[in-house]
Amino acid sequence: LAGSRPLQHGRGSALRDVANRLRVRALRARGNHPTSCCSAAEIAAVLFFQAMRYWARQPAHPSNDCFVLSKGHAAPLLYAAWAEASFLKEPELLNLRKINSDLEGHPTPRLPFVDVATGLLGQGLGVACGMAYSRQVLRQGQVSALGGRPSLGQMAGENWVAMGGAGVGKLGEAWPGCDPTLSGQWVDPGSHWGENPGVLAHFCSLPGGGSLPGVEDAENWHGKPMPKDKVESIIGAIQSQIQTHEVLVPQPPIEDVPQISIAGICMPSPSEYTTGDKVATRKAYGVALAKLGAASEHVVALDGDTKNSTFSELFKQAHPERYIECYIAEQNMVSVILGCAARDQAVVFASTFAAFFTRAFVHIRMGAISQSNLNLCGSHCGVSIGEDGPSQMALEDIAMFRAIPGCTVFYPSDAVSTERAVCLAANTKGICFIRTSRPETPVIYPPEETFEIGQAKVVHKSDADRVTVIGAGVTLHEALAAAHELAKQGTHIRVIDPFTIKPLDAATIVNSAQATGGRIITVEDHYTEGGIGEAVAGEPGMVLQSLAVCGVPQSGKPAELLDLFGISTKSIIAAVKNTFAS
Amino acid sequence: LAGSRPLQHGRGSALRDVANRLRVRALRARGNHPTSCCSAAEIAAVLFFQAMRYWARQPAHPSNDCFVLSKGHAAPLLYAAWAEASFLKEPELLNLRKINSDLEGHPTPRLPFVDVATGLLGQGLGVACGMAYSRQVLRQGQVSALGGRPSLGQMAGENWVAMGGAGVGKLGEAWPGCDPTLSGQWVDPGSHWGENPGVLAHFCSLPGGGSLPGVEDAENWHGKPMPKDKVESIIGAIQSQIQTHEVLVPQPPIEDVPQISIAGICMPSPSEYTTGDKVATRKAYGVALAKLGAASEHVVALDGDTKNSTFSELFKQAHPERYIECYIAEQNMVSVILGCAARDQAVVFASTFAAFFTRAFVHIRMGAISQSNLNLCGSHCGVSIGEDGPSQMALEDIAMFRAIPGCTVFYPSDAVSTERAVCLAANTKGICFIRTSRPETPVIYPPEETFEIGQAKVVHKSDADRVTVIGAGVTLHEALAAAHELAKQGTHIRVIDPFTIKPLDAATIVNSAQATGGRIITVEDHYTEGGIGEAVAGEPGMVLQSLAVCGVPQSGKPAELLDLFGISTKSIIAAVKNTFAS
Repeated sequence: LAGSRPLQHGRGSALRDVANRLRVRALRARGNHPTSCCSAAEIAAVLFFQAMRYWARQPAHPSNDCFVLSKGHAAPLLYAAWAEASFLKEPELLNLRKINSDLEGHPTPRLPFVDVATGLLGQGLGVACGMAYSRQVLRQGQVSALGGRPSLGQMAGENWVAMGGAGVGKLGEAWPGCDPTLSGQWVDPGSHWGENPGVLAHFCSLPGGGSLPGVEDAENWHGKPMPKDKVESIIGAIQSQIQTHEVLVPQPPIEDVPQISIAGICMPSPSEYTTGDKVATRKAYGVALAKLGAASEHVVALDGDTKNSTFSELFKQAHPERYIECYIAEQNMVSVILGCAARDQAVVFASTFAAFFTRAFVHIRMGAISQSNLNLCGSHCGVSIGEDGPSQMALEDIAMFRAIPGCTVFYPSDAVSTERAVCLAANTKGICFIRTSRPETPVIYPPEETFEIGQAKVVHKSDADRVTVIGAGVTLHEALAAAHELAKQGTHIRVIDPFTIKPLDAATIVNSAQATGGRIITVEDHYTEGGIGEAVAGEPGMVLQSLAVCGVPQSGKPAELLDLFGISTKSIIAAVKNTFAS
Repeated sequence: LAGSRPLQHGRGSALRDVANRLRVRALRARGNHPTSCCSAAEIAAVLFFQAMRYWARQPAHPSNDCFVLSKGHAAPLLYAAWAEASFLKEPELLNLRKINSDLEGHPTPRLPFVDVATGLLGQGLGVACGMAYSRQVLRQGQVSALGGRPSLGQMAGENWVAMGGAGVGKLGEAWPGCDPTLSGQWVDPGSHWGENPGVLAHFCSLPGGGSLPGVEDAENWHGKPMPKDKVESIIGAIQSQIQTHEVLVPQPPIEDVPQISIAGICMPSPSEYTTGDKVATRKAYGVALAKLGAASEHVVALDGDTKNSTFSELFKQAHPERYIECYIAEQNMVSVILGCAARDQAVVFASTFAAFFTRAFVHIRMGAISQSNLNLCGSHCGVSIGEDGPSQMALEDIAMFRAIPGCTVFYPSDAVSTERAVCLAANTKGICFIRTSRPETPVIYPPEETFEIGQAKVVHKSDADRVTVIGAGVTLHEALAAAHELAKQGTHIRVIDPFTIKPLDAATIVNSAQATGGRIITVEDHYTEGGIGEAVAGEPGMVLQSLAVCGVPQSGKPAELLDLFGISTKSIIAAVKNTFAS
């Protein structure tokens, strides 16, 4: 395990020259944050050419040390470092922020040396903790995160959390001998580094404008490109300080990382549910996750201090060494899981109340920009949680996750389909969200039933069907009850379980609509906006009625609330009749 | 100004008895968190019957001191205190969490003694800071926030931020003589209180189960109702400790709060834009906000360290004493603004990049549950920001705000309509979101043009129109360019500016669709999901083509990106032609 790596002494002047070459490149690139780049030049020089071990020609090599540029607006500095390491060609740096270049304004994994996209201040330390966690399981690697003063200043909130139980603290606990530290304000190349052992180094950069003649410590330079008339004289002044042209070669990594595969994970045993059993989908999630953990040692689970409600506790009981308790800090939880998932080192699942994932929306969207493979399970969706009231009811989570590019949104309606959703999520790229419910509902699928992403199930059907009703979770069971009640009255309806809301099985829905006179009713335990109804409304050739929760709900018994907010069996029957009235 | 209020000595035993009566009531109510209630009973007793000044019969009296139950799951304790104060009747407490009662599982403003809904841990201190801020402007009042260990523990993140620049620190700075403090772990009634001066007291409650025989300090009691067989013996044990039945009457407030009105604010002068001027809507926001601040001394503005990008700096320059810099801490900013807005003490506007409001989604949703009147302005929406890349581009913000109950979503397309949006937002209940853009776009409305919420403008029209195109912000200007280009080719289209996306002017849209053969095209600088296209798709009798951003974007020039993601003039012309091809 890499940890403390004292500097080779006598390299100080060469490192100072590297730092100044990085400054010159960052200024030439004409980015928007020259001071933020220049203030961290020494730190980058020391990290990339002294402390870190990596193959410069293979930036994504699994054995390479990891680096997170938490202050993503200093991207030109990162690009300059990879040019110094000869991975990027000098002329490419001048394509910064151009449409045909991968050198974006803030770093993204379009570049092989970027594991996690940054540009949202404050997330870096949590991400680095997650990376270090995957790595410490493998007993190797050093992870560094570089943050600016805002990261350690106003954004301290997130960093304090990251330093706590689920962050650096967890590493120390999970990994005896690891002594993670935050290092200080200033790095004097050639000294001190050796005094900062540990898996994580989170630096605060220098005062704005570090070493820029006429700019250092002056006000109002942050976030402003260097004016053309100034830039050449500043570059000249910096170049005049360069004493040697010694090229420093980074140390190679210790190649101790086995190539692991996280693909093709199968459940070790079939589902053990019997049709008619009453099982909450949130519990089926926990059962499935524990089974998945037995299928692969690379499955890691996190929870935000709700494990006895989300049932991730079943995973913890079975695989305690691969469970990370993140406490009530959902933002940090998502930062940590982003890091855990980096470089395909783990299959990661994080769970909490679906309502509380709204606290991490910005981190989830960064996960999409990071091309990250995350699985998130949100329990206690909708008014059907009952007495705890609106603050605990997720009614906007489908809208939130549908708006995440490439996100797969699972909304299983029974225990068997929940188990399939967990297994499919483990094997699906991108961000997956699994929405689970609190109430116990009957198992409707046989244990051997197969499910595919984007494939709906027609769960109730006859040739006489005159309306198609789409329900999910608790409302699918309300729709089935409505179908049976209406059948007694001689009205037949078709009932569809979409299984995934994104992607949506448009073909099955459109075909059913055609078979039922174009009449479609959606019923969901979610707000109207961004929910199932709006997802379906985009499809052509149907007359849609959307039954959804309108307005802020309240406490009450689940059944009372389904009635009050018009998504119960009663409301579905009324809507079906209304379809013909109009 | 209320601040330090030494306890009247010799009341300690009476306060201890109050605390035990609160425990008994909380246990009788059979809530889910008896230990969380009982552990804070002494604190509640001291606050409600010693420290705070209020009219118990008029809980919403403007001169009353304020109390925020940050640990909202201890709601039964709050209800018990108001029963002790004789505002609630004892039997009502037994209706806790029932559908016909306002005593919800977590407190909401359906109760007159609740200013801000809680149930999301960690927000209380920021909210209390905001309340104290509105109050200190009025030179009165004491605000207390009560949080549990999670609030001060794992959730420390948010609280550290609240203690910083934009929170308690700001109060000290804005209000010389205010010495806000966090008081300690334990309150011994009858002592110490006097040593904790200041406007804010944020307590950590006792170890789980405080004073519950057989429960105190035992494991696994958190969040569990007391079992029926145990509860009576525990209640008996507590009652046996009650020595007196002295009823303590809270101290009346100092009635020094003038009744203020924040209704009917009008701009002091007409818009000063000329049709054809090129002005960014983000700049028009700053201009309008500064004018609004001149119209009413009750207008307060906050920003998340982006004031020179959102142009809220124009308000700061004009009204520095009513500007709160919240730095890069959007969650705390929304908590603070929630508090500022409480009890209609201020007209509040907060601004940052629209992308960064996703960091505060959970706080915004709590704002809706709090029935709060907030105005949020998100700048730099969409790919049209250009080079900074996807982490800075808001493409999910319309989806997010549409999913907030009762939220008004303004998406102005020029400077005049932006100024109207700001004035309408100031006079509109609930949460208002104003989406502004980075690029400069032409002013298209005359200065005297009037706008209404839910009223769209048909900005381009002829009797020969064959397609209706709906655009907003930069895409409205792309649509107008397409209309002119197509007209040259003999194809006429109608162009609509929706002005508000929620509520949507369905009548105008449906009428235009009917007038143009049912053919509608929406074009938006936002992801497909939850955006303008889906909002329109719900309307009947139209064939809709939705042009929106698909997939994670990248850096580039704004015009290049509009083309690349298919929302430019070129793409609109192609879509119009495609409408007839199919």
